[in-house]
Amino acid sequence: MKIFHTADWHLGKLVQGVYMTNDQRFVLQQFIQDIEQEQPDVVIVAGDLYDRAVPPTEAVQLLDEVLETIVLKLKIPVLAIAGNHDSPSRLHFGSKIMEQNGLHMAGRLTKELQPVILHDAFGPVHFHLVPYCDPSMVRNVFDDEEVRSHQDAARKIMTEIKAELDLNARHVLIGHAFVTPFGDEEENTSDSERPLSIGGAEYVDAQLYSDFHYTALGHLHQAHYVMKEKIRYAGSILKYSISEEHHRKGYSIVELGQNGDVKITKKELMPKRDMRTVEATMSELLTHSICDDYVFVRLLDETPILSPMEKIRSVYPNAMHVERKQIITQSIATTKKTRSKMSDLELFQSFYEQVKGERVTEETERIFKEVVDELLQDENKTTAQPQREFVPN
Amino acid sequence: MKIFHTADWHLGKLVQGVYMTNDQRFVLQQFIQDIEQEQPDVVIVAGDLYDRAVPPTEAVQLLDEVLETIVLKLKIPVLAIAGNHDSPSRLHFGSKIMEQNGLHMAGRLTKELQPVILHDAFGPVHFHLVPYCDPSMVRNVFDDEEVRSHQDAARKIMTEIKAELDLNARHVLIGHAFVTPFGDEEENTSDSERPLSIGGAEYVDAQLYSDFHYTALGHLHQAHYVMKEKIRYAGSILKYSISEEHHRKGYSIVELGQNGDVKITKKELMPKRDMRTVEATMSELLTHSICDDYVFVRLLDETPILSPMEKIRSVYPNAMHVERKQIITQSIATTKKTRSKMSDLELFQSFYEQVKGERVTEETERIFKEVVDELLQDENKTTAQPQREFVPN
Repeated sequence: MKIFHTADWHLGKLVQGVYMTNDQRFVLQQFIQDIEQEQPDVVIVAGDLYDRAVPPTEAVQLLDEVLETIVLKLKIPVLAIAGNHDSPSRLHFGSKIMEQNGLHMAGRLTKELQPVILHDAFGPVHFHLVPYCDPSMVRNVFDDEEVRSHQDAARKIMTEIKAELDLNARHVLIGHAFVTPFGDEEENTSDSERPLSIGGAEYVDAQLYSDFHYTALGHLHQAHYVMKEKIRYAGSILKYSISEEHHRKGYSIVELGQNGDVKITKKELMPKRDMRTVEATMSELLTHSICDDYVFVRLLDETPILSPMEKIRSVYPNAMHVERKQIITQSIATTKKTRSKMSDLELFQSFYEQVKGERVTEETERIFKEVVDELLQDENKTTAQPQREFVPN
Repeated sequence: MKIFHTADWHLGKLVQGVYMTNDQRFVLQQFIQDIEQEQPDVVIVAGDLYDRAVPPTEAVQLLDEVLETIVLKLKIPVLAIAGNHDSPSRLHFGSKIMEQNGLHMAGRLTKELQPVILHDAFGPVHFHLVPYCDPSMVRNVFDDEEVRSHQDAARKIMTEIKAELDLNARHVLIGHAFVTPFGDEEENTSDSERPLSIGGAEYVDAQLYSDFHYTALGHLHQAHYVMKEKIRYAGSILKYSISEEHHRKGYSIVELGQNGDVKITKKELMPKRDMRTVEATMSELLTHSICDDYVFVRLLDETPILSPMEKIRSVYPNAMHVERKQIITQSIATTKKTRSKMSDLELFQSFYEQVKGERVTEETERIFKEVVDELLQDENKTTAQPQREFVPN
């Protein structure tokens, strides 16, 4: 059985104030072409179809188009679960009616964990759809007060599923969780993944999934496997934060053999616009070819630049962010003396060092003093005129 | 062909801060029982399934349950359109996938106005689903700059539909609009219907629908027909404002005969709690039997009552509103003299008249003077003690 495993579409996502909808449509069209060409038996979307509980209508329309094409036009069943970004109830709407046409949407967790059963030449494959749910939801659904952490919740659900497991069939689990091999909890996170809970109770031990022939995971945005080759994140379809700059985005093609053995191929999707860092001085940058990519610019100039974004966008019209390379400065006067107690010259020295990263030269100090003296002289001339009252806050 | 015509469910509606979800579930369960018993060929919901574009999840779940029961369990097709309260795109989601199982949801207006065709012993019946759309949407979809008003929009759509009409079939139109017989525009409105547009351009002439064998309308909350018996509003399933107090809520059973003749029966739904006005003095009201209805109380007492809602809710726990019957008073001194210039006695006289609706008796005036004199005497005794500073705003 050939399975396309994808996850973390995050339709309706805004990155630095920019809607990703067109970029998402672009890669999903490639995905649909691949489906048409490769004719998998089933497509899995392991959660976070939308970026938020109430996505913008453009995102709703895009998901509608994509699912309609796969299910109705290409006649390939889709198995999707809610992720932590989706609204369980909103995603669940119409699911019973749609499943008869091959669209299986598990939005809400229910007590009855009936697998979706598909067949190939070697017999049935049971797909266990486990939508994202926090521990309190699992506690309520199964009326089990012991469920406190995500690990407890996953263990409870796995126990329920395993109690009913048909040992003559092959089994695929679809889940949305932060799965780690024991003791390896801090790896592979990205800024665009929302934490599942505060305080470290969000991790699920990969061991729980080791009995399934394949586990199709969503939540972490980098494609990778956890503990075993067959417990795998597909990763997101696009880079959703600059911390994902070096990820290769796409999906997994899983070929499930007669005995439950799996052969996994990574398939990349080409983004409409890449997301990457550009490090250069402004003058270098302005010699680059014009490029549509979503760039995060780190300017190497030593001096500040006026309206840098405006200049950058003449070359990179979709630039998302600009910063100056952090200059590591020696211990500066400001840290030792509060500003209110500094003389004019000291204030200038401190400012100069922070901006330029080096001490003021004697020549510069001399010019500064001259200018200040001139200004103070002018001020003394005007003191005879009426002054505005100055009231301290 | 037996048709159940209903409209204006407004799931997720809040009335005076109270969610109507349980009341809605109560009447919709009756509706489902009626469907089970009467076995209509089709159920029409003519818009405003939800009360707002993003309804609460309880409303989404309730609609999901109801539609699933009718379509999957009772196997009766449902034809629904978006009303002005619904989000076209959100309601449209999954519609192509669901229509294969008998749920036809027209959320967004499309250029292709394909009817849904159902059959009975006498042949086909074409149902034309026209979701609510404002003139600008129609202007865009048909690229017709002439469309300015709701009347223009409806005329445009009807022209498109009529151009393709199969004259050998019977035709039912499903619409959501403010339809009036010519010149009779201000009738039948209720406070809970949101105006479709500002400035009177919202009306649609009933004449436009006269060619259809039946027109199933939604938007106005009172069940009634417009111009002809066969152009009809089903009305809302519940009273959604006290201005609907005297409506009899329910739905229409339409029997469409061989030649397109219609026999229409009004079927009532029994609300869990009625919505009605109670006029009584507080002492009378407190002798009433305890009642769950949503009451709007008009107190007939002449004197103000402290914490009236608290007292009322000991008898009517779901009371929604309380007001005192307006007492028409004669021209009172306050209108002639500003308060700051009035003496203590004049202030009292004016206050008394406003509250009681009659002039103060001499006896009452005498008691008032005594009390004031006593207070002033007390005040003079305390002037020797330190006083707080009083600063005017």
